[in-house]
Amino acid sequence: MGMNLTQKIIFSHLVEGSMIPGEEIAVRIDQTLTQDATGTMAYLEFEAIGIPRVKTELSVSYVDHNTLQTGFENADDHRFLQSTAAKFGVHFSRAGNGICHQVHLERFGVPGKTLLGSDSHTPTGGGLGMLAIGAGGLDVAMAMAGHPFYLNMPKVVNIRLHGKLAPWVTAKDIILEVLRRLSVKGGVGKIMEYSGDGVKSLSVPERATITNMGAELGATSSIFPSDEITKKFLEAQGRGHVFTPLAADPDAEYDEIIDINLDELEPLIALPHSPDNVKKVSEVAGQKVDQVFIGSCTNSSYVDLMKLAKILKGKTIAPNVSLVVAPGSKQVLYMLSQNGALADIVASGARLLECACGPCVGVGQAPSTGAISLRTSNRNFEGRSGTKDAKVYLVSVETAAASAITGIITDPRTLEEPIVVEMPEKFAIDDRMIIPPPVDGSNAEILRGPNIKPLPKAEPLPDEIRGRVLLKVGDNITTDHIMPAGAKILPLRSNIPAISKHCFEAVDPTFPDRAEKAGGGFIVGGANYGQGSSREHAALAPLYLGIKAVIAKSFARIHRQNLINFGILPLAFEDERDYDEINQATARDGDELVIENAREGLLSDTIEVKNVTRGRTFKVKHNLSDRQKEIILSGGLLNFAGKK
Amino acid sequence: MGMNLTQKIIFSHLVEGSMIPGEEIAVRIDQTLTQDATGTMAYLEFEAIGIPRVKTELSVSYVDHNTLQTGFENADDHRFLQSTAAKFGVHFSRAGNGICHQVHLERFGVPGKTLLGSDSHTPTGGGLGMLAIGAGGLDVAMAMAGHPFYLNMPKVVNIRLHGKLAPWVTAKDIILEVLRRLSVKGGVGKIMEYSGDGVKSLSVPERATITNMGAELGATSSIFPSDEITKKFLEAQGRGHVFTPLAADPDAEYDEIIDINLDELEPLIALPHSPDNVKKVSEVAGQKVDQVFIGSCTNSSYVDLMKLAKILKGKTIAPNVSLVVAPGSKQVLYMLSQNGALADIVASGARLLECACGPCVGVGQAPSTGAISLRTSNRNFEGRSGTKDAKVYLVSVETAAASAITGIITDPRTLEEPIVVEMPEKFAIDDRMIIPPPVDGSNAEILRGPNIKPLPKAEPLPDEIRGRVLLKVGDNITTDHIMPAGAKILPLRSNIPAISKHCFEAVDPTFPDRAEKAGGGFIVGGANYGQGSSREHAALAPLYLGIKAVIAKSFARIHRQNLINFGILPLAFEDERDYDEINQATARDGDELVIENAREGLLSDTIEVKNVTRGRTFKVKHNLSDRQKEIILSGGLLNFAGKK
Repeated sequence: MGMNLTQKIIFSHLVEGSMIPGEEIAVRIDQTLTQDATGTMAYLEFEAIGIPRVKTELSVSYVDHNTLQTGFENADDHRFLQSTAAKFGVHFSRAGNGICHQVHLERFGVPGKTLLGSDSHTPTGGGLGMLAIGAGGLDVAMAMAGHPFYLNMPKVVNIRLHGKLAPWVTAKDIILEVLRRLSVKGGVGKIMEYSGDGVKSLSVPERATITNMGAELGATSSIFPSDEITKKFLEAQGRGHVFTPLAADPDAEYDEIIDINLDELEPLIALPHSPDNVKKVSEVAGQKVDQVFIGSCTNSSYVDLMKLAKILKGKTIAPNVSLVVAPGSKQVLYMLSQNGALADIVASGARLLECACGPCVGVGQAPSTGAISLRTSNRNFEGRSGTKDAKVYLVSVETAAASAITGIITDPRTLEEPIVVEMPEKFAIDDRMIIPPPVDGSNAEILRGPNIKPLPKAEPLPDEIRGRVLLKVGDNITTDHIMPAGAKILPLRSNIPAISKHCFEAVDPTFPDRAEKAGGGFIVGGANYGQGSSREHAALAPLYLGIKAVIAKSFARIHRQNLINFGILPLAFEDERDYDEINQATARDGDELVIENAREGLLSDTIEVKNVTRGRTFKVKHNLSDRQKEIILSGGLLNFAGKK
Repeated sequence: MGMNLTQKIIFSHLVEGSMIPGEEIAVRIDQTLTQDATGTMAYLEFEAIGIPRVKTELSVSYVDHNTLQTGFENADDHRFLQSTAAKFGVHFSRAGNGICHQVHLERFGVPGKTLLGSDSHTPTGGGLGMLAIGAGGLDVAMAMAGHPFYLNMPKVVNIRLHGKLAPWVTAKDIILEVLRRLSVKGGVGKIMEYSGDGVKSLSVPERATITNMGAELGATSSIFPSDEITKKFLEAQGRGHVFTPLAADPDAEYDEIIDINLDELEPLIALPHSPDNVKKVSEVAGQKVDQVFIGSCTNSSYVDLMKLAKILKGKTIAPNVSLVVAPGSKQVLYMLSQNGALADIVASGARLLECACGPCVGVGQAPSTGAISLRTSNRNFEGRSGTKDAKVYLVSVETAAASAITGIITDPRTLEEPIVVEMPEKFAIDDRMIIPPPVDGSNAEILRGPNIKPLPKAEPLPDEIRGRVLLKVGDNITTDHIMPAGAKILPLRSNIPAISKHCFEAVDPTFPDRAEKAGGGFIVGGANYGQGSSREHAALAPLYLGIKAVIAKSFARIHRQNLINFGILPLAFEDERDYDEINQATARDGDELVIENAREGLLSDTIEVKNVTRGRTFKVKHNLSDRQKEIILSGGLLNFAGKK
């Protein structure tokens, strides 16, 4: 029996385990990436591991999140990251050089390689035929130290694309269609592998738009074959030599198959506040728009912005719309500056922002009160834009551009004639803003600002876990709920004591205080707890506040691993009805729970939890691998690795 | 006897008073401008005056300060300003269209006209031969309502420029030389009028760089003649029809004359933390630089950025330097995008920011801890950059660009061959981001966000003013000390109760609480109290906190008028030694002072103040005109105007 592409790459990188879906495996990591909002922790962790220099083929440290610099903290972080990159043998991509995923695709990605990144949208690299996975900073630090990456062997879903997109219908609409069908939980434990004749009409950046938003499915990763189109892209980037053709074997088998007829697709739109709340653009057309944002790692490539320039040329944005544009990389901005397309964008009235994540992660351009914001980015979680009551809609560049001109949500098919933008034969190649590490970094000094605090220490799992339910939340709680991002809180990413004061801020601002006063306790969650970002701060802050276990209906993959990495027990209700039997704890302390013999409990599949307040018990599963049990018993991955 | 240019323009606009230096005069205002950080108050005040539509020839509402939008507040303010512009008959320059002074110079300034702006750098317009004056928002609101602007007839200083600048020496170096000679207090009560053969070699934007930083001298304004160079500039902006030749009469007299030989000038630099702390660049060359910022209303014109592009072309910025560039207007950005210069800037590694004030006013790009930042802007007050211990140096574009490449403070004369940038024959004219008001705005709805709060009300002056000295500060206290700007506090500009909590934050963060608890009291200041910005928040916040009088050695002009406008008594020690006899009040309450019969006291020149705590009395002068007395007695200008 042949292998699918996912299996092939995993097989060629397999260090431990067998490739049976759900079983723990360990894969060798070729490349890593970090960004500044997760990177400072990752390099503090790498420093704690105590290896002098990274052991990967390539590691890159990007600066793309915290670029507003409203205080000294951001610039201090950038300086710290530049110094750790030199010290540890990491390439450093300077602020302004662009968004990690866009730049990595352009300058570093290699088909068939594994890439682990401390950013949930790392699967963008799947557009190049990489096995690219998002993880917490500590997992990335371990990979940099030469350790394999542990995950449960995912199921592989084959998404077969048939036919060709109609004019004005785009790759963004394909992934919105997948989200419409599968929901934000539909990809959990799976890798989405694209194939079919429809793949041939998609450029690498278009494929990357699709694999990027595979993160919104909860998927472990998404991947496209590496073919002639991949080869041409790499050649245009001056990197033809790294090309390898890669595809599933003809007789490959998949765990699931999904068919999408591209010809039948229409422009789609994700309504507030979830990327899977998808409708046809034509169904909501006419709605007044206050802001349009074009950019983010999903849709900020050269072709994306050339399309924007062509649509805007000679047009003026509507007086009620603020159009903000952030090119994905210096390469994109440079090429648009050189060929005059930027002039067309600027002339129309667009506000040009620095090449960075920006508005997508709530770093600037918060909309006005109650505003409707159309964005080409990947997430529209409530409040993420920086304005609590803003309504964010996710669309393609084409839909966004058309709507910016009309001032209302507009189906781009109502625009006159379709635009055509060709992939360039040759991209402008200029890596001067990427600083390669010195051959010997041992003399490099690590520059730490006053906001860069040491890592909090986790303790080995105690025999008895006792505490109150400090917070009970519903389904689909995102990492933005647990540890908000945005321009005001992101500058604290290097300072766990300070950032912990914002933990669950939008859900219950009294939580950090209550947790500290109580000396810790439990969090109770619903299904898909911790979806969204890879930020390990969503585990580090609860750790700092004394949380010993999270009991939920189910967990998102990366967040669950982050909890384990910092010694917090992720426990799933055996019977979900027990969720209802726990006292709602918002703004005051809830039921007192006890897990007796917790260390021993890990040996069996289920653990008994006593609800002391209610005088009842219920069962939870931990689903931990033997290795994960050891990590939890040791009090986190750093302690575990130290013991080894 | 002939008249100088200043006298001519004042004479042609004189409504009240006689042109004797020091005497109060009133002049008709032709044009006004506001920016978003002062504009929301100005339009609330205009609304309170109750006139349906502005009576000026032209009024423009710009958005250039609060463009980061880290929360809903900024975007709400923009929306409010767009709606009040439509309602009141004001042109609205949208966010992204550029810095008010740069855009006004390009698109609206007219030689010989008067311009009143709620921004201290309004004198930039003097580069076009305007009489352009900065004032508080309420003064601008009154001007929009058709009232004249009241000021004391300034002395006129003739600065005669002889010869021609050497290569690499610039207009910025001329104004730094003036600052070196005269200090930040040297222009108080004066207008600086430039003449001499050296004027002929300076373009309008270069002249505007000089008049812009006249604000740092404390001058009421600065002005250049309107000549063939002015004509060419206006023609290149498609506005040749507004040109009038203007110059002093050959037999004009001046209160002072200063001669500067341009040939003898060298590149200069203002060291931290004052614009008059000027040295030769060559004296500090070699100092390592962490950040370089090119932009601000001082140096962000087309020619400025073309020079930057030429210097950077083919070069790479130093790895230790973060180079940030913010073009002054959409016109500048568009032209650089079209002619390829922007590509050269981007290629070198510069980080491109939106066309706005940005780093100059601490809105983004705060340097790292203890960093050295070289800036082409106009102010280097401590902490203004957003990083308390950063050291900001002020330089020309040439010095900044040279230093960005080398990574150390660099005399640009050490660069190879001088660059030449010609003024364009024709600028790219495109006013689509300036929304003209509808002919009838009566139906326009004013859109108010939840952060836009009503104006605080001032009460008529009581007979007895009694209170403690809540704060005693030293010389040269800036409006940045009184009411900080920056990305974190500026969003509160429309909300006096909220912003008041930050009053004197860097000097004594306990001040607002103590003032509120005490129900108000006195502030004691040194010389040149309130220098810097036109922000009336530096008066509104003390008003809100109950401050009834400020007693200082001397006051900066705009701030003194702002205090009067909001009914706060600005009192000057008759004997400065009495300053020393008042108890230092930092972090706790100081001496109790009483002014008995305050209303009557205004009738005489001096007022007696009793220091109850120390059992002594001392005398203060108010120097108020009859009109100003009426304003103070009424409880501020709005009450006064209402009575009339």
